[in-house]
Amino acid sequence: MSEKNVRLGIIGLGAQGGMYAGLLQDGKIDGMTLGAIADIDPAKKELAAEKHPGVPFYDDYVTLLDSGDVDAVVTTVPHFLHAEMTIAAIGKGIHALTEKPAGVYTKQVEEMNAFAAEHPETTFAIMFNQRTNPVYKDLKALIDSGELGKLRHTSWIITTWWRPQGYYDQSEWRATWGGEGGGVLVNQAPHQLDLWQWLAGTPKKVFAKLAFGFQRDIATEDEVNAVVDFGDGATGHFMTSTNDIIGTDRLEMLFDQGKVVVDASTKVTVYRLSENERALSDKMTMQDVAKLFRGEMDPSSVYTVEEKTYESQWGQQHIAVLTNFAAHINDGTPLIADGAEGINGVRLASGMQLSAWTGREIDLVDYPADEYLAELNQRIEAEGKFPTRS
Amino acid sequence: MSEKNVRLGIIGLGAQGGMYAGLLQDGKIDGMTLGAIADIDPAKKELAAEKHPGVPFYDDYVTLLDSGDVDAVVTTVPHFLHAEMTIAAIGKGIHALTEKPAGVYTKQVEEMNAFAAEHPETTFAIMFNQRTNPVYKDLKALIDSGELGKLRHTSWIITTWWRPQGYYDQSEWRATWGGEGGGVLVNQAPHQLDLWQWLAGTPKKVFAKLAFGFQRDIATEDEVNAVVDFGDGATGHFMTSTNDIIGTDRLEMLFDQGKVVVDASTKVTVYRLSENERALSDKMTMQDVAKLFRGEMDPSSVYTVEEKTYESQWGQQHIAVLTNFAAHINDGTPLIADGAEGINGVRLASGMQLSAWTGREIDLVDYPADEYLAELNQRIEAEGKFPTRS
Repeated sequence: MSEKNVRLGIIGLGAQGGMYAGLLQDGKIDGMTLGAIADIDPAKKELAAEKHPGVPFYDDYVTLLDSGDVDAVVTTVPHFLHAEMTIAAIGKGIHALTEKPAGVYTKQVEEMNAFAAEHPETTFAIMFNQRTNPVYKDLKALIDSGELGKLRHTSWIITTWWRPQGYYDQSEWRATWGGEGGGVLVNQAPHQLDLWQWLAGTPKKVFAKLAFGFQRDIATEDEVNAVVDFGDGATGHFMTSTNDIIGTDRLEMLFDQGKVVVDASTKVTVYRLSENERALSDKMTMQDVAKLFRGEMDPSSVYTVEEKTYESQWGQQHIAVLTNFAAHINDGTPLIADGAEGINGVRLASGMQLSAWTGREIDLVDYPADEYLAELNQRIEAEGKFPTRS
Repeated sequence: MSEKNVRLGIIGLGAQGGMYAGLLQDGKIDGMTLGAIADIDPAKKELAAEKHPGVPFYDDYVTLLDSGDVDAVVTTVPHFLHAEMTIAAIGKGIHALTEKPAGVYTKQVEEMNAFAAEHPETTFAIMFNQRTNPVYKDLKALIDSGELGKLRHTSWIITTWWRPQGYYDQSEWRATWGGEGGGVLVNQAPHQLDLWQWLAGTPKKVFAKLAFGFQRDIATEDEVNAVVDFGDGATGHFMTSTNDIIGTDRLEMLFDQGKVVVDASTKVTVYRLSENERALSDKMTMQDVAKLFRGEMDPSSVYTVEEKTYESQWGQQHIAVLTNFAAHINDGTPLIADGAEGINGVRLASGMQLSAWTGREIDLVDYPADEYLAELNQRIEAEGKFPTRS
């Protein structure tokens, strides 16, 4: 092994794992090659032999970790397994790129994070590929620059995750409590739950209305409408579903000194106020107010508008995260997403579920992790298809 | 008095009352003339004499009701007074057009509605002028036709109600608990709270985050982010504020068979599915699903898009409601807004306040009216400027 070549083991040769294997085989990832593949499904052995001849195949992930064939792994397996596989890998000094979501319940993700923190020499990253989308990278840089000031409110309507019934009927575990641990919040929306918190900050409380099996024959949620509290009066709204075939993707963020609207993850409109809105408000005289009501004042005189349209670049994002993972291992390049950051999305998604189950606003700072797990296990038991979790 | 001429008494010669007096004096309201004016402010007597010479002026509204000069009244006075003045008028057989909001707390509005119901011969209407806006009239007709099917979710972001600090500093009662009973929910947003429920139906529950004196030096709310539950899984989101100088007005409604998006109350986009979305979902084969994920299926093949842009017509709306009020009195023309419908907006606005105060989701069907009034009175007492209410 060259110091500049990371041999990646792919755990789970499904749609996602297969895609990564293809990218590696085609030499698309600088500093990384395909080391080995593991899958418990015997049919995948044949598939691997056909598509990736010469690449070692193992029928369980522990044997892969012990094989000496890999320096790192990616966990393209059902969400419940991300934490235990990541812990096993890191325990053997093997770098781990966990898939999103980091897990289903916070307890397992906290165990993973604590274990990874004790092994800082082993890289722990998470596949938040949408953080490499130039739309959100640029927006993150703008917000971090402080130019727009403090957040006042935000709303993200993200209903472009349309999935027909046939999608759910593909496999036994999908959109079940025991096999997947949720619906749109666990499978599709984790991308936006991460981006939203990356851009807006981590909410302190959440209240959510979820509809379970609303427009699909599934046990879990296909409809979500939630409000969050960022503290100090700042609030947010998040709406997602898998039953809107037309689909809306609209993010709005209001700040003390401007506003950003992102449409369809491609068109960004940035409004910049000439100064802090509160200062503008305080400055107006009674005469100005009268003018405003007579329609003689044009508020647009106090702000500028900039519009920018981006190309959609979905295919490049997984490449960017894999390349960054390799670069971090090889030369310490900062990670796009540290594995430990996966907890925020899991806490928010599971907090939304717990809020809907209990009818209460859920504290995300002093988070009731045990209550969530007990509620989840009740649903897994009632379903009767999968083991409960601990 | 001609049977075809309704003599209107204006109670409260402020900005709104003055505007109606002007419209009547200019002959803009078919079937209605300016009968008399009442105001407790002596300065308004001079103003009335100057602008409306010959029109009787009274320094209290009861004298106006007893004068024989009016057949009907409009209550352009602080919100707390709408109910008692409307009850007094109807008790004397005088038709009443109450201003919005119908009141601040539901108890007083229910008393008004019950009293009006006992006097069906006297007209009881409410100034929901935005129901006459062609944008919303057409949308209401489309929804009522049943073509789009059942509501799934909706979101209204309405932050075009920007008000600078000077607006609040104009008078002692504005945005206080005792004088006005609330902030943006009571003064500005009642228009949208009515339109939303008129279009989407009456919610069964609400949870809201409000920020009181967030970006303005006021006691009440200038920031609202709320979710409502319409029952059967259908939900809604409502966000409003008076601190966004740029302003967003965007209504989205998703139905079983289509979607509507209204931008800036002028541009309407209607998406119509070829059939019910659930039927479309059920019909897709596994092959179709695979196609969808390979990007080979275009979901837009199953819907049409219609865009329509309306002219902004704000000035005409009050004329339409006054004319309709006169026509109802004169010949029984159906009312644009029956006075009894004002309760919905008051219940939703006060439910949002109560939710924010208590951190609970509030039941709007079995509404805790006494609890709301007790909480409001606590705030009126702490403020120490106005009497508590009962």
